[in-house]
Amino acid sequence: MSNTPHLTFDLNDPGISKGHLVIPNGSDSEALSLPVFSLNKGEGPRLLITGGCHGNELEGPIVSRRLVDWLPEAQTCGRVIILPVLNLPAVQAWSRDTPVDGLNLNRVFPGRADGSVTERIADAVSRLILPMADTVFDLHSFGPKWDFPPASTTHPIADADLMAKTVRLAEAFRFPMTLVWEFHDTPGMFDTWAQSQGKVFVCVELGGGTVGSESLAIYEAGVRNALIALGLVDGKAEYLTYRQQKSSQTLATLSSDELKSPARGIFEPRCSVLDEVKLGDVIGILHSMDSLSADSIYIRAPTTSIVCAIKSGVHVDFNEGVALLARPLKV
Amino acid sequence: MSNTPHLTFDLNDPGISKGHLVIPNGSDSEALSLPVFSLNKGEGPRLLITGGCHGNELEGPIVSRRLVDWLPEAQTCGRVIILPVLNLPAVQAWSRDTPVDGLNLNRVFPGRADGSVTERIADAVSRLILPMADTVFDLHSFGPKWDFPPASTTHPIADADLMAKTVRLAEAFRFPMTLVWEFHDTPGMFDTWAQSQGKVFVCVELGGGTVGSESLAIYEAGVRNALIALGLVDGKAEYLTYRQQKSSQTLATLSSDELKSPARGIFEPRCSVLDEVKLGDVIGILHSMDSLSADSIYIRAPTTSIVCAIKSGVHVDFNEGVALLARPLKV
Repeated sequence: MSNTPHLTFDLNDPGISKGHLVIPNGSDSEALSLPVFSLNKGEGPRLLITGGCHGNELEGPIVSRRLVDWLPEAQTCGRVIILPVLNLPAVQAWSRDTPVDGLNLNRVFPGRADGSVTERIADAVSRLILPMADTVFDLHSFGPKWDFPPASTTHPIADADLMAKTVRLAEAFRFPMTLVWEFHDTPGMFDTWAQSQGKVFVCVELGGGTVGSESLAIYEAGVRNALIALGLVDGKAEYLTYRQQKSSQTLATLSSDELKSPARGIFEPRCSVLDEVKLGDVIGILHSMDSLSADSIYIRAPTTSIVCAIKSGVHVDFNEGVALLARPLKV
Repeated sequence: MSNTPHLTFDLNDPGISKGHLVIPNGSDSEALSLPVFSLNKGEGPRLLITGGCHGNELEGPIVSRRLVDWLPEAQTCGRVIILPVLNLPAVQAWSRDTPVDGLNLNRVFPGRADGSVTERIADAVSRLILPMADTVFDLHSFGPKWDFPPASTTHPIADADLMAKTVRLAEAFRFPMTLVWEFHDTPGMFDTWAQSQGKVFVCVELGGGTVGSESLAIYEAGVRNALIALGLVDGKAEYLTYRQQKSSQTLATLSSDELKSPARGIFEPRCSVLDEVKLGDVIGILHSMDSLSADSIYIRAPTTSIVCAIKSGVHVDFNEGVALLARPLKV
C-alpha cells in the first residue's frame, strides 16, 4: 500500500472512468477508498461535484449517484468529476463529524498529509482533485435536526468579481432559495480554500430533515438546471415546484439573524421554512422539561423577515440556534 | 434523598397538580425528577398519557406539553395523568436508548428497583403511575430515520375483547392510518406489561422524520379526537388533512412485510408513505459506496400493498429494514 494519496486511474483519460481516491492509512485508521467518477469530454467547463462531507447529509451522495447514471448520455463537453462520498466513515456512522477523530471535514481544509483521517481526506482532495476543476458544487444539507428548503448558498466573498459569478451560478439552480449567508466560522472550510484557489464554489444545501423521494427529485432537477447553465448538458431549465409553489428568491442572512434558545428545553417549531413573519410573530416555543409549572417561552421574530431554517422538535441547550431568518438580498 | 421512587404530590388530589416522579439515584446516575401533570375531575375514565420513552421521538413530549396547557379548560370529568418525558437522559441526548446503560426503555418493563437507570424508570412507572389508569396513550414516533404517517397502532393481543376495545380506541384518533402490527420483539414492552394488567394501551406513532409545525397540529388534533371518544373532553371529532388528503384507514402489517436491505450502502427512497404499490413497483434503490462500477440494486414490492413506513436517505447495513408494507385489516 502506497503511503501517499493517489487515484486508481488518470483523470486525464478520455470518456468515462470509475475508480477510487485512496486515502493512505495512518495510526488512526486503515486506508480508505473513496469512489470517484470522471467523464472527460475534452474542451469546456471543468466541474467537480462532491457529496457526503458531513455523514448525516445523504441527499448529496444520492443525487451524485443519480448523476453518475445519466451524465454519460447527457454531457456534451468539458469535464465532470464526482465524489459522492467525501467522508465515508462519517456516512457509515450517520454522524456529521468523523467518528474516529471527532473532526468536521469542512473545517480542516486544505488538510494535512500526516494528520488524522479527516485531515488526510482534505489533503488528498485539495492536492489531487480540486486542481482539476474550475467550478465546485459541494452538496450538503441542513441534516436531520433542521427543516430547510432546497437552496444554493454562498458566504460573502471579498473578491467582488468572484462573488458576482458565484451568486449568478447559485441562482441558476432555480431552487426556491438562493442564500448569501454571513457566517464567521469559516477557517478550514472547503469553500474558503477553493475560493482562495480562484474557483467558483457553490455550497448546495439540499433541504434538511427527512430525505424523501419527492424532495430528491427537486434536488436533482436543480443540479441539472445548473449543469445546463454551465453548458455541460443540453436542455431547458425547469422551475421547481416546492410545497405546491413555484418560486425562486435570493435572500441574505446575517450572523445576527440566528435566533438562539433562551433556555434549555424542548423546542417546538411554530412556523415553516419560507414563511414570511413580522415583528412579534411566534417562531417557536421552548418548553422546560425541568418542571411543568414553568411557563413555556415564546420565541418571536425580532423584525419582518423570511424564515430560512427552523429546527425540528428536539431538545436544545441554552443559546443553541433554533431558527435562521433572512431578507431579500440588496444588490 | 429517599431511596425509593416517589411522587412529590398525591395523584388522588382533586383538580390540577404539577410535580415530579422521582427516580432514585443508583451507582450509574443521580436521582431523576420526571415532570408529572395530573388533572383529577373525579368519576370517569382514568387516562395516562406518556411521551419521550425514546429520546429521539420528541413529537410526544411536545403534544403532551400542549395538552397540559389546554386540558384544564377542556376536561369535563375523570382523571388524566401526563408524563411528557419518560426518559429524560435519552431526550437530552437525542438518543433512542438511554446513554448511560444503553438500554431501550421499551424493552425493560416492568423494570427493577435495584436495576440500572432505565430499569429504575420502568419500575417507578409500573408501580406508581400505571395502576392509576385504565387506558394508556404512549406517544412515540418512528424517529428521525423514517418517514411514517400520523398513526395509532397496536400489536395483536391474545385477549379478543381487549384487542377489539384497543382497535376501536385506536381508530378514534382518526389518524390517516390505524395499524395492527405483528411484531415479535415484544418482551419488556410497556404495551405488553400494561395489557397484562388489563389496560387498554394505544401505541401512538406520531409520524417520523422532521418534527414540523404542520404535522404537530395534526398529531394534537388526533389526540383530541381520542379524548373526545373517551368522554373526557366535549367537542366534535375532526377528520385530519394529511398531505392534502382526508382519509383514515385501518391496516395490518406482518413481520414478513418488512423489506430488508440486500446489501450495505446508501438507501434512496423511491416512494412515499401511504402510496399504493403493486408487485414489482420500485420501493427504493440501494447504492453501493464501495464502488461506482457496481450496479445499484432496485428494491421492489413483492405484492400489492400500501407503504406504511419508508426509511429516509441513510446508510444501511445488510439486512437492515428499509420499508414496511401493509394491507387493509380483515376483520
